Amino acid sequence: MDATLLVEPSARLTPRDEVERRLAGLRETLAVRGLEAALIVQNADLYYFAGTVQQSYLYVPAKGPATLFVRKVVERARLESPVVDVVALPSLRDLPRLVTGRHGRLPSRAGLELDVLPVSQFRRLEALFPGVAFADIGADVVRQRAVKSPWEVERIRAAAALADEVYTLVPGLLREGMTEAELAGRVEAEARRLGHEGVIRMRGFNQEMFYGQLLTGISGSAATYLDTPLGGIGLSPAVAQGVSFRRIRRGDHVVFDFVAVREGYIADFTRIFSLGPLHPELARAYDVARRAQDAVKALARPGVTCAAVWAAALAAAEEAGLGASFMGRGEGRVRFVGHGVGLELDELPVLTTSDLELAEGMVFALEPKFVLPGLGAVGVENTFVVTADGLEALTTAPEHVVELAL
Amino acid sequence: MDATLLVEPSARLTPRDEVERRLAGLRETLAVRGLEAALIVQNADLYYFAGTVQQSYLYVPAKGPATLFVRKVVERARLESPVVDVVALPSLRDLPRLVTGRHGRLPSRAGLELDVLPVSQFRRLEALFPGVAFADIGADVVRQRAVKSPWEVERIRAAAALADEVYTLVPGLLREGMTEAELAGRVEAEARRLGHEGVIRMRGFNQEMFYGQLLTGISGSAATYLDTPLGGIGLSPAVAQGVSFRRIRRGDHVVFDFVAVREGYIADFTRIFSLGPLHPELARAYDVARRAQDAVKALARPGVTCAAVWAAALAAAEEAGLGASFMGRGEGRVRFVGHGVGLELDELPVLTTSDLELAEGMVFALEPKFVLPGLGAVGVENTFVVTADGLEALTTAPEHVVELAL
Repeated sequence: MDATLLVEPSARLTPRDEVERRLAGLRETLAVRGLEAALIVQNADLYYFAGTVQQSYLYVPAKGPATLFVRKVVERARLESPVVDVVALPSLRDLPRLVTGRHGRLPSRAGLELDVLPVSQFRRLEALFPGVAFADIGADVVRQRAVKSPWEVERIRAAAALADEVYTLVPGLLREGMTEAELAGRVEAEARRLGHEGVIRMRGFNQEMFYGQLLTGISGSAATYLDTPLGGIGLSPAVAQGVSFRRIRRGDHVVFDFVAVREGYIADFTRIFSLGPLHPELARAYDVARRAQDAVKALARPGVTCAAVWAAALAAAEEAGLGASFMGRGEGRVRFVGHGVGLELDELPVLTTSDLELAEGMVFALEPKFVLPGLGAVGVENTFVVTADGLEALTTAPEHVVELAL
Repeated sequence: MDATLLVEPSARLTPRDEVERRLAGLRETLAVRGLEAALIVQNADLYYFAGTVQQSYLYVPAKGPATLFVRKVVERARLESPVVDVVALPSLRDLPRLVTGRHGRLPSRAGLELDVLPVSQFRRLEALFPGVAFADIGADVVRQRAVKSPWEVERIRAAAALADEVYTLVPGLLREGMTEAELAGRVEAEARRLGHEGVIRMRGFNQEMFYGQLLTGISGSAATYLDTPLGGIGLSPAVAQGVSFRRIRRGDHVVFDFVAVREGYIADFTRIFSLGPLHPELARAYDVARRAQDAVKALARPGVTCAAVWAAALAAAEEAGLGASFMGRGEGRVRFVGHGVGLELDELPVLTTSDLELAEGMVFALEPKFVLPGLGAVGVENTFVVTADGLEALTTAPEHVVELAL
């Protein structure tokens, strides 16, 4: 092996049969959409369909084997990817010639992830493939990825176990007088030791996330630019989210909203600590959040719509008179109670007023949360997989509020 | 203030005169390009031109004041942004009507950051503004942002000070037998305590970075998908970069390549530790890296081209017979010796075979590095600002290899 590389063959993580099933699913999309090929270009999708994020273009014809054209690093892509046909791509300009050489001809209609590909890169591809009409298959890929294989569920279970384990360490890390940032650093250090990969991929333009939101006291009330119920004050307006320099004091509570990433797969998780007794209104809202979670657990199974799930959670909040505080307040309020997780944090299903039906193998984070004026946020969040019988929780830590004696 | 918010007025970080000068620069672009307005949409650019990353569209007419149209959160955007005219945008559909109401009419030609905006979002804007021809001003914005104001240089100096300080803590954190991931976690925890914001913005599609690359021993030889000289093994092929589970042993050396982010601004920094004497070939290559840095320092000043800087650094490597190992080996080799830093890690100037001339106020990370077969990587990296007289280093830690007795 060349000295530029030292990735072991065990670096190949995604089994070949996984990738073959996924490519078969993509070919179904191509058939339905009347497309002759797909060109997959974005990291999460490349990892999904090819098992690697090496700088590549994955060419998937409607019939026949896929080719991974690799700009950098070919040797590593060969080790990482179960795709058999891996070809060096010296320059993007070479792509049309190499596709023709490998696949006989260029397609007349091809799919691209236009939901994430920047315009200027798209125009380069259009110029290189003047006879090809490109169609947006972003939504198709997102829908396909929403249903996880048993192998993927086990990956997410491993990420969930990391979240569960880090959670148990928090009481040993939290000290009165620490800033939110200092506590976050200690928590994140444990997560790294346990294999947290750091990079949290999001599909949405301008969306960005760093480990989640560890918010204390009234910090939980700060809404921000993210499509999330909680925001946080942040360390500056440049990254106006997450932890701040606020010092943690006796009487505070801690919203421990933690995103774990292991081997590319994400689990999302929220629990509550309190430094002294939790304020009665927060305690009551937390109970309502758990009741909303119970309502969803009683209802959710394959065939149930996202809208029905959202309605059940919202009804639990409204019955308790907390409808206006549910999933944020005022401008900061979001209209969903959960989101798919997988290789990205913002996957389908979104548990909102949508006709999308739950299907076996879908994995989502369910996160009923409340923001109470002047008091901050509370809520519970677990990552669930939809099974034939209903929901199975992948995050499993106990849900009671942990009161810490400092 | 509404309970959804608790950001203090001090949350406004970017001074009004900074934003006004930046908007004046953007208006010059519009005049040169014959455009009647710009619509700024991406986080780093929004922060640059409006001082906030709240979900917004910044409308900048060629003449007259700008308007920030905010989807989420208006109240927070008003606190964070020095832009005077901040308007709620209930839905993107309302944008044409609100622009017309505020600015009298719609432009016939407008600029957009098409280098980063995804195709599907661009098409939504095209459909909403059927009479508007959109031109790509991404490259203009990137060129403008390459030249920093004195205020920005001080922000980057603060990020550089964070890198310097974290570096001094490494000897107290490193223990034999730790994995790279565990050491990284400890280092990152200190960085967080000191105000590291975590999110490292990159403009390039599919580029992603998490604190830098802390690589030990032969890990420094692993090239990967990033447009960087070093890659790292990573924790899995899903995020095939950065730290691994490799255990740090006596005789190893540590490439401490660290990206600091404070108040949105980035500094990039590399130093070397060794656990026992550094291998003579690595030590020699490290000296050559410092010589390459010296060659650039002797040459670089306003008016000098990036190509001349690159040539000077490459010549120092080639004179030492290390040309083939300079900035990576084989496929992993990159053809630049530095890159601009600011609100993004991959800014201009890129120190490569380019005609771009250095200008006073440009800030870049200069990173001469070598990858030696079977031994790993070494190199030095500092963040410099171009002054009238030459380069001023913003990262200031001593550059000798620190040998640690474990």
